[in-house]
Amino acid sequence: MNVNIIRAARAVLHVTDLEKSKAFYEALGFIETEADEHAVYYRGLEEHVHHSLVLKKKEQPAVECISFKVMSEEDLHSLAERYEREEKTVRWIEKGEEKAIGKAFRVQDISGMPIEFFAEMETQERLLQRYDLYKGAKVQRIDHFNCQVSDVKNTARFFQQTLRFKCSEYTIDDAENLWAIWLHRKPNVHDIAVMNGKGPRLHHIGFWVKDAMNIIDACDILASLGYGNKIERGPGRHGLSNAFFLYLRDPDGHRIELYNGDYLTSDPDFKPIRWHLNDPMRQTFWGHAAPDSWFEEASEVLHVHTGEKMPLREPKLKQKKPEFMI
Amino acid sequence: MNVNIIRAARAVLHVTDLEKSKAFYEALGFIETEADEHAVYYRGLEEHVHHSLVLKKKEQPAVECISFKVMSEEDLHSLAERYEREEKTVRWIEKGEEKAIGKAFRVQDISGMPIEFFAEMETQERLLQRYDLYKGAKVQRIDHFNCQVSDVKNTARFFQQTLRFKCSEYTIDDAENLWAIWLHRKPNVHDIAVMNGKGPRLHHIGFWVKDAMNIIDACDILASLGYGNKIERGPGRHGLSNAFFLYLRDPDGHRIELYNGDYLTSDPDFKPIRWHLNDPMRQTFWGHAAPDSWFEEASEVLHVHTGEKMPLREPKLKQKKPEFMI
Amino acid sequence: MNVNIIRAARAVLHVTDLEKSKAFYEALGFIETEADEHAVYYRGLEEHVHHSLVLKKKEQPAVECISFKVMSEEDLHSLAERYEREEKTVRWIEKGEEKAIGKAFRVQDISGMPIEFFAEMETQERLLQRYDLYKGAKVQRIDHFNCQVSDVKNTARFFQQTLRFKCSEYTIDDAENLWAIWLHRKPNVHDIAVMNGKGPRLHHIGFWVKDAMNIIDACDILASLGYGNKIERGPGRHGLSNAFFLYLRDPDGHRIELYNGDYLTSDPDFKPIRWHLNDPMRQTFWGHAAPDSWFEEASEVLHVHTGEKMPLREPKLKQKKPEFMI
Amino acid sequence: MNVNIIRAARAVLHVTDLEKSKAFYEALGFIETEADEHAVYYRGLEEHVHHSLVLKKKEQPAVECISFKVMSEEDLHSLAERYEREEKTVRWIEKGEEKAIGKAFRVQDISGMPIEFFAEMETQERLLQRYDLYKGAKVQRIDHFNCQVSDVKNTARFFQQTLRFKCSEYTIDDAENLWAIWLHRKPNVHDIAVMNGKGPRLHHIGFWVKDAMNIIDACDILASLGYGNKIERGPGRHGLSNAFFLYLRDPDGHRIELYNGDYLTSDPDFKPIRWHLNDPMRQTFWGHAAPDSWFEEASEVLHVHTGEKMPLREPKLKQKKPEFMI
Repeated sequence: MNVNIIRAARAVLHVTDLEKSKAFYEALGFIETEADEHAVYYRGLEEHVHHSLVLKKKEQPAVECISFKVMSEEDLHSLAERYEREEKTVRWIEKGEEKAIGKAFRVQDISGMPIEFFAEMETQERLLQRYDLYKGAKVQRIDHFNCQVSDVKNTARFFQQTLRFKCSEYTIDDAENLWAIWLHRKPNVHDIAVMNGKGPRLHHIGFWVKDAMNIIDACDILASLGYGNKIERGPGRHGLSNAFFLYLRDPDGHRIELYNGDYLTSDPDFKPIRWHLNDPMRQTFWGHAAPDSWFEEASEVLHVHTGEKMPLREPKLKQKKPEFMI
Repeated sequence: MNVNIIRAARAVLHVTDLEKSKAFYEALGFIETEADEHAVYYRGLEEHVHHSLVLKKKEQPAVECISFKVMSEEDLHSLAERYEREEKTVRWIEKGEEKAIGKAFRVQDISGMPIEFFAEMETQERLLQRYDLYKGAKVQRIDHFNCQVSDVKNTARFFQQTLRFKCSEYTIDDAENLWAIWLHRKPNVHDIAVMNGKGPRLHHIGFWVKDAMNIIDACDILASLGYGNKIERGPGRHGLSNAFFLYLRDPDGHRIELYNGDYLTSDPDFKPIRWHLNDPMRQTFWGHAAPDSWFEEASEVLHVHTGEKMPLREPKLKQKKPEFMI
Repeated sequence: MNVNIIRAARAVLHVTDLEKSKAFYEALGFIETEADEHAVYYRGLEEHVHHSLVLKKKEQPAVECISFKVMSEEDLHSLAERYEREEKTVRWIEKGEEKAIGKAFRVQDISGMPIEFFAEMETQERLLQRYDLYKGAKVQRIDHFNCQVSDVKNTARFFQQTLRFKCSEYTIDDAENLWAIWLHRKPNVHDIAVMNGKGPRLHHIGFWVKDAMNIIDACDILASLGYGNKIERGPGRHGLSNAFFLYLRDPDGHRIELYNGDYLTSDPDFKPIRWHLNDPMRQTFWGHAAPDSWFEEASEVLHVHTGEKMPLREPKLKQKKPEFMI
Repeated sequence: MNVNIIRAARAVLHVTDLEKSKAFYEALGFIETEADEHAVYYRGLEEHVHHSLVLKKKEQPAVECISFKVMSEEDLHSLAERYEREEKTVRWIEKGEEKAIGKAFRVQDISGMPIEFFAEMETQERLLQRYDLYKGAKVQRIDHFNCQVSDVKNTARFFQQTLRFKCSEYTIDDAENLWAIWLHRKPNVHDIAVMNGKGPRLHHIGFWVKDAMNIIDACDILASLGYGNKIERGPGRHGLSNAFFLYLRDPDGHRIELYNGDYLTSDPDFKPIRWHLNDPMRQTFWGHAAPDSWFEEASEVLHVHTGEKMPLREPKLKQKKPEFMI
């Protein structure tokens, strides 16, 4: 029995000031598919689906869920079974309950992350060749999630063995413990990464842009609009993943990565790339250090059944960031 | 029973002057893995495998085969059976017979193209982060093959139904006949395209480059080295596929495309994009016409059993190029 | 006595449909400083002056004048004298007569081109760091004029000896006649070029853009907006000048060049670069041929005293385009 | 009497390990015109002159001089007189004494900087269109010098009034004292900038590159070669000057800026741009802070008569860096 998870598909974020958030994401070049006073639905220029990012207006910033798209409704049932075998109770969502998506379920993952799976989403006009609408960072599509979790090893085991994600790259600490891992279903570097840290928390959502110059241009445009203080890290080249990156913090502190330049990971004989946590080229190939905030701050997540914030656990591995950062 | 074809993997070309060819492909930035007086094996900067392009020194230019990588040796047998059910006799190649690859088979496809399938290839150091070795067009990896065939409809049927390729985009003529089709296994626009034309012939091999500026730079570098006359078409943007492209002719006339900028085609609900043959934006989004040679010239292919050139058949559809070109 | 001509400064074009023209130039990213039903005034993102391009609504497309800025009003008088010594009658324009500029004069140049000189223009907010307003080709500033004239040699002599322009590059025909010349006051390749051809006509106005990718992006954006048919030539690299270029035709057929990548020509010991008309790398370094229209079509110019169209004279040198074009 | 200074022309640096320095500058893409065991002469790809950077092997790192090119030998004499009127004794250098340059003089400037003026330098083949030789950062030409001086106001006065440099941009502290100033002869942002700091010291030499992507590529290439630790600051966009920049430290700590993207400053009515020292967008338009080393470290300079190191004076203005940095 296969697990036909296709790819990272959408994130549902809670934000406290919808107008402020909308100004920010529109500056970044997201396309608004639909909006009302409670929520806004964004897609990238390449996306033929209704959205890949939902912002809901709420009292407190939080992550309601991160979602993966699967091949068919049948796969949803097969996945739900796997979770229940691990004693994780899924919450079913009927078609129409969540705007634009079909039947779905949500579950608190083994790491504590609120994860959603769905097979169907309404489609929309793809704007890939409407270059006249390109602006800001010209965001093309959602690419991946990065999560801080207290037990990387256990989370990775579940994603690899049960959900059949493949590893492209990983990081070990001095004692050779697995400190972080990059896992994919679509054949690029990742649909999800998990890093050792206080968790469960969503560290960032990665969006694909079409080249490095789009990221440089985005910095100039964001600065012109007064968003210079939202640039947290970069632009730079990651050693791990080879991606050209920029990290931004939205008005509620949710972290967005603009991402380009990783590689095809289609082949079964591709050997995952191993990095030492303290290798200065791992984080930024050029040797630049990340700011402390990048390691310490992340978005808290909600319980899929209660809607309450998930309590945070300290990470299993003591080292919270590379040595040269401390 | 699945058909686990992964991707377009290598091409074996016959060239008449190995030194001349080597100078050209090295100018383009291909990495030479291995060479002797009879052949040279090239890989792109991103490739962890031994090669994706083989040039063999022979009396006459020709295409020995185009190859797809499959998941496992088991898949080879399952594919061979499918071909034999269509009364296509495969030729098995034992491990070691062809440098660096494991057990394989070759077959004259339903279109007449010589196609090879293999599961295993020796690996090599991946040079993705050896930016000091980047030169020319900084070729990253093989992406796709484009073939001229006399019967597009029948070829497409076989690739879609039997080999389980998916269609991303296609072209129809005024009578709504299928004039060309773009088919993929890896989730971007194509691993193979087939176009209506005198065939079977290999129209071009597409290699992935990392951005549009690499293609502009390649033009400057090629011109500096006296290869300006090898630029046949472009740089430009394809309407169909959205790729930024450049077409080059190697010293024997084999056509190489430098290619960047298509999109993710992972989703089962992605609806193939339909283009009219006579839409001027189909070929070049900016409206530029392709030169006649681009429609008329292509590389002849060999019979996998006899090694003789395959006879050419006239295309089933009379229109050989867009109206505005005639 | 010095001739303190600073640079190419503005062009005044007649267009037949102001709305149509405005749509086109705004798509290109020009900044509208001011407009009414009779005229529109544009500046580039880098320009601190009121405008560098004026479009006036008239019955027929034409070039009213091309203008150079000089250091001071004193220089105007000194220049007028030089023209009158050549028996060219200048027409003085008082401050306020032409919107935003100070005292000026216009004269029918030795080549027949209507040329204007002024020292003073109202200033405007420079938008160089308003990256949020960048769009289209992100036009930065006017760079140069290119004119077709019947007697290149004589025109060049006057510009070099009397107006003290310096030559950066030039083209000769097989008989070593001067076929075209690039002349500058500001230290890059040119403020004005003159080419052998039916004249006097304005071949194009060159506007500076910040890099080659802006030109690629402009092609995509123009095509998205239905202006693909306005792209006449390029993108490409000029051999002569080394510039990366794109030629566009506005709704009245006036030709605009987007231009980037020439070089500093400040040094007195820089030796002008000589090109043979029939060298295929001269026009396009990559060897691409220009379309016939690029050689044959150009904007007609008006008489500065009568406002009538200047009669056209056949070029002195018979060869009207490179050999490989014929 | 005019002062025909053309532009910043060359720097003469002392380095302690010529081989190590050569490896670094060659990685950056400088073209070696000539070298022996004592010195190496570099030029950029655009330069038609013998060199713009000289490295001499010496016991201690230092700056022997920074040089400006003037129009003619006559201008040398006129400049020497002006210095002597300020009681600055010039040291004449006869043609042939310094490799490749003609008659010259050196003088300890009013700020204490060792400055050289010359009119003539041997020429060399310009490699602008030898794209096959482009590598590293593809350095095009020398652009400017930046100096730390103890008395900015007095230095600026001399450069503006006596040497007739023009100001493009400047920085004031809270008390409206002139903290730094950008001064040019060629019409872009600067040939020399002076900043308040312990001086006289050479802060950096700026070299022009052709676009921002060349700087991104340079980071990747330098990192691949193990020079990641030589990247001190950037890549980023300067608010002041609008330039896209990268600061590197050579093996002796001399600072090199890769620089692109400033603007034309030809017009006499261009009003210098005023920045407050504590405006966070001044240094980096995106709001990034410079590292402390960027403010504190610089290259010491030699006395043009004695060859001894110039003693350092504390800056007149107390604030040594922007407030948000402290």
